[in-house]
Amino acid sequence: MARIAFGRFDDSFSLGSFKAYLAEFISTLLFVFAGVGSAIAYNKLTYDAALDPAGLVAIAICHGFALFVAVAVGANISGGHVNPAVTFGLALGGQITILTGVFYWIAQLLGSIVACFLLKFVTGGLAIPTHSVAAGVGAIEGVVMEIVITFALVYTVYATAADPKKGSLGIIAPIAIGFIVGANILAAGPFSGGSMNPARSFGPAVASGDFHDNWVYWVGPLIGGGVAGLIYGNLYIPSDHAPLSSEY
Amino acid sequence: MARIAFGRFDDSFSLGSFKAYLAEFISTLLFVFAGVGSAIAYNKLTYDAALDPAGLVAIAICHGFALFVAVAVGANISGGHVNPAVTFGLALGGQITILTGVFYWIAQLLGSIVACFLLKFVTGGLAIPTHSVAAGVGAIEGVVMEIVITFALVYTVYATAADPKKGSLGIIAPIAIGFIVGANILAAGPFSGGSMNPARSFGPAVASGDFHDNWVYWVGPLIGGGVAGLIYGNLYIPSDHAPLSSEY
Amino acid sequence: MARIAFGRFDDSFSLGSFKAYLAEFISTLLFVFAGVGSAIAYNKLTYDAALDPAGLVAIAICHGFALFVAVAVGANISGGHVNPAVTFGLALGGQITILTGVFYWIAQLLGSIVACFLLKFVTGGLAIPTHSVAAGVGAIEGVVMEIVITFALVYTVYATAADPKKGSLGIIAPIAIGFIVGANILAAGPFSGGSMNPARSFGPAVASGDFHDNWVYWVGPLIGGGVAGLIYGNLYIPSDHAPLSSEY
Amino acid sequence: MARIAFGRFDDSFSLGSFKAYLAEFISTLLFVFAGVGSAIAYNKLTYDAALDPAGLVAIAICHGFALFVAVAVGANISGGHVNPAVTFGLALGGQITILTGVFYWIAQLLGSIVACFLLKFVTGGLAIPTHSVAAGVGAIEGVVMEIVITFALVYTVYATAADPKKGSLGIIAPIAIGFIVGANILAAGPFSGGSMNPARSFGPAVASGDFHDNWVYWVGPLIGGGVAGLIYGNLYIPSDHAPLSSEY
Repeated sequence: MARIAFGRFDDSFSLGSFKAYLAEFISTLLFVFAGVGSAIAYNKLTYDAALDPAGLVAIAICHGFALFVAVAVGANISGGHVNPAVTFGLALGGQITILTGVFYWIAQLLGSIVACFLLKFVTGGLAIPTHSVAAGVGAIEGVVMEIVITFALVYTVYATAADPKKGSLGIIAPIAIGFIVGANILAAGPFSGGSMNPARSFGPAVASGDFHDNWVYWVGPLIGGGVAGLIYGNLYIPSDHAPLSSEY
Repeated sequence: MARIAFGRFDDSFSLGSFKAYLAEFISTLLFVFAGVGSAIAYNKLTYDAALDPAGLVAIAICHGFALFVAVAVGANISGGHVNPAVTFGLALGGQITILTGVFYWIAQLLGSIVACFLLKFVTGGLAIPTHSVAAGVGAIEGVVMEIVITFALVYTVYATAADPKKGSLGIIAPIAIGFIVGANILAAGPFSGGSMNPARSFGPAVASGDFHDNWVYWVGPLIGGGVAGLIYGNLYIPSDHAPLSSEY
Repeated sequence: MARIAFGRFDDSFSLGSFKAYLAEFISTLLFVFAGVGSAIAYNKLTYDAALDPAGLVAIAICHGFALFVAVAVGANISGGHVNPAVTFGLALGGQITILTGVFYWIAQLLGSIVACFLLKFVTGGLAIPTHSVAAGVGAIEGVVMEIVITFALVYTVYATAADPKKGSLGIIAPIAIGFIVGANILAAGPFSGGSMNPARSFGPAVASGDFHDNWVYWVGPLIGGGVAGLIYGNLYIPSDHAPLSSEY
Repeated sequence: MARIAFGRFDDSFSLGSFKAYLAEFISTLLFVFAGVGSAIAYNKLTYDAALDPAGLVAIAICHGFALFVAVAVGANISGGHVNPAVTFGLALGGQITILTGVFYWIAQLLGSIVACFLLKFVTGGLAIPTHSVAAGVGAIEGVVMEIVITFALVYTVYATAADPKKGSLGIIAPIAIGFIVGANILAAGPFSGGSMNPARSFGPAVASGDFHDNWVYWVGPLIGGGVAGLIYGNLYIPSDHAPLSSEY
């Protein structure tokens, strides 16, 4: 979106930028609506039973498919971040200015919150499930889990979408970004929940009023995404390349 | 398909147009045959048990995969709408004429009806399940659910297929269109059923003679698809672009 | 592969042709090994229980993924038919000579037979499940089911791979071909079994010595594939195009 | 990566080569973390119950999705092998030097070991499940199973990624490589476990200290991958092509 780490005001306040913020809002709304919706659907079908493997498959596939599409539909407008940890990782790698990144965060968080209140309405007032660390797993373990899996996600964003040498990988980038989230939920679901995305976790916390453990899903993803941005940006993106658009 | 909102007669009645209507008929038939077939398959395997998470996965994946293919095989001939709400959303955005859109609707509805009667025959006369709003959810909630998820679908059609700036996204457009439907069914299945498509709901209503709640699947998808067309068409498609073919 | 409906001898007996037959043999072997293997795996895990929705998902996804890959790895060598009904449908549309088609059939049937005997060995001698029409469904219903779903498969092959106007659809053609089979198994599995492929059904029949109902999986797929070839070939492939290679 | 079968020292010790080794380390870590994690997740959700079909679907999809992404993110840096059997098969076909291949092996094994110790930590010390041959299946049967399915994997790598004639197939190569592993796990899971990858099996053996049956997952995959490399490399890659980069 921008070429200098702190950007100029006209960059973050132009009409094109507002269209990008709206695109992030819409993409995040659609992603969170489907993803959180699939967790509510499981609770509805099973009368709030504990998660079983078939339910984990349903939730993981839903998040994977929906994120693929949310990234794809935003790709040409905002870059399709749909996730504050992705925006943070791209900012650390010099792919987006801090100011624009702040507006992206606001748009993503608002999209998630609106999605959760919509879900509350359309499900006839069912509870909105929030992310929390599972019994038998400590908060530190939860944070490390989120660090590892968000590292995987943001590393994927860099390798397939932000890297100027990506070549034809860019064509399947949204699928790769969605599917690494699907795979990671199948592994992390029963432990940390597998968020990788502060916006995905924040909306349900707001709609349910339950912020217990919510800090885990800010600290873990931001560290994991930041480390991925620093490693990939410094090691694999050629130094003679000026920072490029995060659009893919 | 056409460049003026009301088209000329020779546009909607040309040989090429009839081939497009036939392509919509075939694509919708194949999609509905697989999709409704997967719901009947669940009933057969479980002796008509209530839906469980494994069954929801089966039905969602079947609809997602089949819609991807139905859109792909029609893409170069009719644009691969396979859905009156998509056709309506594209008409509101000026991508197809009203008259051609009416013929598309007829072809889609006929394809769905024929698919359901075929299913009745090949399953040895089993019941054809229809969409209806679940117990505990009101009609208004069902309509709003269908509005949100159909908005997601038609927004995806615009961003990946109809937008002249789509670039290489067009290559994976049919996958994105199929997978957003798969994801949305995983969320909406136990509430509104997750139709997003008046033709998908109308065929089973005709074949079973049960039109209860059928209006929900006209009102919701047409509003959601129409809003998506108006927003995307006016905001993100450059005004200096003449309306383009809906083919992708 | 060839431009005239009956070909010249040097066409079907050239070194390139033998490489194509070997490619069909290998692709079909790998597809049938995974597909039939997934059915045996279900029986092993459940001690031969009746099929349930989770098992249907496992088998359908396995066939869909494996066929996608089998088509892809053969695409540039033999065209990646992996299925006598596809070869037949392409021959009727003038995309391959009869003589070459006969050698393709032999290679496909041999690949399937070898796959099933390999499965018998690596599973420690477990039974090889064969396709048959389910209880409550007559043979005619089974044949019609196979006609409809094989029509969908071969229509997909034409629209995404054989049609000279396919454009960038050709890039995702193997995925579309695999996923329509996955979707159709989710619908047809509990009724006809969802074969769409005489080779897929013939290998298990040979390895188990049980040819009961096997004719259904020749008659249905060949009619469905043939009709798809005639319709698509005559209606949608421009008459001024000479028959083209079936490679994609 | 290199053009001569034994390479020069400056080739295997250049900065570019070390970046490639790091890329293999990271890709294998992310793949094994998700894949083995999904097996631990099943055990957690079911209190260590025997594998059922829904669990097999979860594990197979997780491996398929995660391998697709691991291959994709390494493709432009190291070629995205993520697997000693793939590296071996490519070396036998003359696509990579022995020396570089040895460093790839070390990076892959280290990535897998680190992933498993990370999993031990983030799961609060749960057991790391290892591959072993199932009851009722002999070691020879397990070896042959792994030979067949690894042949399929490395044949796919050649046809879609290493073959200079691959054309647009290269765009979907990572998806094909991931999905053949997903399909093969659905078939082989309940028998040999469906490894196809010595690194995938070695990390859990180290982390758990249980090397029982581990040789099976070296012998089988190396034979299967080697045979695929010899057949595809000699038969289908034109002899007038010098060995090419394994990057795709």
